[in-house]
Amino acid sequence: MSKKIQLGTKILSANEQYAQQNKQLLTDEKKPCLNMISSPGSGKTTILVRTISDLKAKIKIGVIEGDIQTELDAERIRATNAPAVQINTKGACHLSAAQVNSALHKLPLQEIDAVVIENVGNLVCPSAFELGENDKVVVLSVAEGDDKPIKYPAIFSKAKVLLINKVDMLAGTALADFDIEKVKADTLRLNKDIQIFCISAKTGEGMQGWYDWLCESVGKLK
Amino acid sequence: MSKKIQLGTKILSANEQYAQQNKQLLTDEKKPCLNMISSPGSGKTTILVRTISDLKAKIKIGVIEGDIQTELDAERIRATNAPAVQINTKGACHLSAAQVNSALHKLPLQEIDAVVIENVGNLVCPSAFELGENDKVVVLSVAEGDDKPIKYPAIFSKAKVLLINKVDMLAGTALADFDIEKVKADTLRLNKDIQIFCISAKTGEGMQGWYDWLCESVGKLK
Repeated sequence: MSKKIQLGTKILSANEQYAQQNKQLLTDEKKPCLNMISSPGSGKTTILVRTISDLKAKIKIGVIEGDIQTELDAERIRATNAPAVQINTKGACHLSAAQVNSALHKLPLQEIDAVVIENVGNLVCPSAFELGENDKVVVLSVAEGDDKPIKYPAIFSKAKVLLINKVDMLAGTALADFDIEKVKADTLRLNKDIQIFCISAKTGEGMQGWYDWLCESVGKLK
Repeated sequence: MSKKIQLGTKILSANEQYAQQNKQLLTDEKKPCLNMISSPGSGKTTILVRTISDLKAKIKIGVIEGDIQTELDAERIRATNAPAVQINTKGACHLSAAQVNSALHKLPLQEIDAVVIENVGNLVCPSAFELGENDKVVVLSVAEGDDKPIKYPAIFSKAKVLLINKVDMLAGTALADFDIEKVKADTLRLNKDIQIFCISAKTGEGMQGWYDWLCESVGKLK
């Protein structure tokens, strides 16, 4: 007699198991969660600092900071009075769901409305590791050039939001050849539903559209 | 009777084996080789295009281009009449020595004086994979912020040269807070023998120091 074997059961990786635990915890606690991904120096922390300050009357954000070394970014977040847990990956190029699980248990979830995870600065690897977030946000600084969506398509394909940052730098002549319309068109070809906001976290230009999306998204997911 | 076991023989990874093959090939052919590493968009290709053009009477450079997708960078190099072999990693975050081995066999080594490998845009992972190069060159754009050496120390510790690029952008007010002296001091604390050049591949500012180092280095290694 033949023995029946059940096929089609997905074997989860250790990372996926932790990502599911994180998603369950965040759902139980009704805390929407974003995973911010970009190259080093595109302005993730500066965007977060301004967003937290400008929205403090509407949304309380807790932050999980991923860096290879140093507590610098968590300190910048804490200066806004928002809670921040720093993860140092000690060389690893992305955050793992296990690290985020541990950090989630250190955040005062009862005191916040949403969690933002700032991943290690890397436009490649973090896009392949689910952390249990609801959505990914990709940040591209105009100083990085307008060819990045087609050269690094994975994260531009998966993100719910693209923030094109440092648009204040386009005013000078140095970046006059950065073509925002090309970035938008290339990204929309990869991901027709992505929301794109052109911002300067330094001057505040364009931040309102991002704030509106964030407040609406947090409101829906809570 | 006890049996003698020889300890201390290093087991090489597949990548290290290919890296050794590449180094042997490059040594046999007397072709010095550099491995350029940086975040996406820091200006590696623009630096190479200008360097190849400005030095064409002195050094003939062949290029191995690493990108996740597209042939864009190899096409920019070929527009200078230099030979370029494009590797598409199809998602992988760094070049492997095996990929470089295959590319080296496609380059017309007899027609060139030196090989430059432009790695995938990623400040983290490529620093951990030897490709058989003589030296690593790290590029940091001033738009990425002055905290990068301490946040991403591995590549700044291993590189022989740091090129601080896009210094023309410091003239405006947008990047007035980028502290070049801090970057130099933090990098030298990690790596006291590193050579640091502040350049703009766009305007040509500061390129001569880099050219002098390159010509001397190629002359020594040939």
